[in-house]
Amino acid sequence: MVQTVEWKDGAVRLLDQTKLPLHVEFLDCRDYFAVAQAIRELRVRGAPAIGITAAMGVALGAQALVATDFDRFKAELWTICDHLAATRPTAVNLFWAIERMKRVVDRHQGSPIPEIKMALIDEAQAILQEDIRMCRSIGYHGALLIKNDQTILTHCNAGALATGGYGTALGVVRAAWEQGKKIRVIAGETRPVLQGARLTAWELMQDGIPVTLITDNMAGALMKQGKIHVCIVGADRISANGDVANKIGTYSVAVLARAHGIPFYVAAPSSTIDLNTISGDKIPIEERSSEEVRTALGSTHLAPPEVEVYNPAFDVTPADLITGIITERGVVEPARLSL
Amino acid sequence: MVQTVEWKDGAVRLLDQTKLPLHVEFLDCRDYFAVAQAIRELRVRGAPAIGITAAMGVALGAQALVATDFDRFKAELWTICDHLAATRPTAVNLFWAIERMKRVVDRHQGSPIPEIKMALIDEAQAILQEDIRMCRSIGYHGALLIKNDQTILTHCNAGALATGGYGTALGVVRAAWEQGKKIRVIAGETRPVLQGARLTAWELMQDGIPVTLITDNMAGALMKQGKIHVCIVGADRISANGDVANKIGTYSVAVLARAHGIPFYVAAPSSTIDLNTISGDKIPIEERSSEEVRTALGSTHLAPPEVEVYNPAFDVTPADLITGIITERGVVEPARLSL
Repeated sequence: MVQTVEWKDGAVRLLDQTKLPLHVEFLDCRDYFAVAQAIRELRVRGAPAIGITAAMGVALGAQALVATDFDRFKAELWTICDHLAATRPTAVNLFWAIERMKRVVDRHQGSPIPEIKMALIDEAQAILQEDIRMCRSIGYHGALLIKNDQTILTHCNAGALATGGYGTALGVVRAAWEQGKKIRVIAGETRPVLQGARLTAWELMQDGIPVTLITDNMAGALMKQGKIHVCIVGADRISANGDVANKIGTYSVAVLARAHGIPFYVAAPSSTIDLNTISGDKIPIEERSSEEVRTALGSTHLAPPEVEVYNPAFDVTPADLITGIITERGVVEPARLSL
Repeated sequence: MVQTVEWKDGAVRLLDQTKLPLHVEFLDCRDYFAVAQAIRELRVRGAPAIGITAAMGVALGAQALVATDFDRFKAELWTICDHLAATRPTAVNLFWAIERMKRVVDRHQGSPIPEIKMALIDEAQAILQEDIRMCRSIGYHGALLIKNDQTILTHCNAGALATGGYGTALGVVRAAWEQGKKIRVIAGETRPVLQGARLTAWELMQDGIPVTLITDNMAGALMKQGKIHVCIVGADRISANGDVANKIGTYSVAVLARAHGIPFYVAAPSSTIDLNTISGDKIPIEERSSEEVRTALGSTHLAPPEVEVYNPAFDVTPADLITGIITERGVVEPARLSL
């Protein structure tokens, strides 16, 4: 599996996910502006990966600061943090990771600046390594829920590409596959940006895991035909009451799963849980450019160029539609999340 | 409104719907092979429009026959009918229209061949004119169900472009609009072939009717937000028990509508009702090329080129999810269809 994000030779190296699946290209971000731009342009995406990348962006920004005074250094670093935090509003891992980086600075009050700069790189690396471990643990717990010969519907990409590696929803798939279970994944293409078609299909094919691509509107028909046994998706933010913000279309899948008696799981590291947000209706939902809907990846006009468009990037699935949330600590009922 | 299909100067003139919305181009089919190819390639689509076009294809094929003997003429015309009937399997209007054309021949047994040829053109023209009248009547009955300030979700294109003119689901929209009701249409883009984005959005904008385009996976989120008051779709075949085959994704919309307490109507001429098919699971569902899903309109690769794809063009919505079927005769509960 290629590395989604890494600290390499004093730069943040990202797999440019806008080029997949046809081209595997890497983007070396040499300043924090480039990191922020890459997050905004979806060159890196997926809540955990956004968090890791932002942390690396903070570390990268720190290296370039010339301040020798702690207060000055801190003030300038906070500006960098604000810039990175303003890239995307919904995934809470972004803010969680940036807060973690800020705490490193606070803990080093009075330390020499070069030492703080090094500690920031170490922290970003630790966030990456922890994320991979958490994904493996999510995979372990989730795989217990998957039986042999089952077909799993997933939406968007909650895979290695959305994390430090291994994936959350696809971490469960990988773990079940590694246990020798014969499984198949149905990947919803996930319009408008097509993370299912471009990323999930590609990532699973790289690992030789059977995958069938469908358009999002086929999910209900497949469920009715008995072709889907379990749904697993990722999350961009989980509120304290267990509501889940995730890629637009997730809510429709959850309603359809309930109507067909199919279990619906959310897989996410605990960094995705936001106990400060009491319920899903308080989660800010990013609206993106109309062009994403009017075109396919910017290159083909699918609709009248001037048609009015509604393009929310996420929706909220209420806790009562969710069978369980799979975190690195185990599987929990959404209502028991904050207990 | 441009003419979807017409008999013009001894040819079948079709608006080439694969070129919309960017180009308004017409295709003159000068033999029945060209008509069949146009149906297969979706240059004309929509159950009623397919029926009309096939009838014109039969009339066109008849004109070129050199047989002077009735039995020979009939045998050759039946071959033409078989060729046209083999273009697409799901929309019953295709078979209904061809049967109607065959009955014209049977009624003229013993008549001079030139007279039969003329009668076939007349019958095809009559099918077209009747379809437009039926759409107006569907619009009249359906508009009674639409209140001022309501927002209507539709899927695919059941508009003027799918019929002889005026439309079925969009006929209801047009009639309500002509009555001065302030309404808005939410058009699901309808992957993979994007009839919602390309055709419904274009057609409504031509008439100045407010329309907002969404990706199909947004329907649930909009319903949850209370932004959709009623759903109206067309139909490709309605079985005797009131089950409805329509564009893939229709079933998901119906399940979502039921979960949110939103009425779900099907609008179709009675030629779409197939009393010979007892239930929806007996309706043949066309599966189309994987390339439709792997690409957007053939031009942009959205997925790994070799990914496995499932691409059913239609799904079946069971009668119990349908609030009412709007035909030219009025609104009927699906269960009372064959009474």
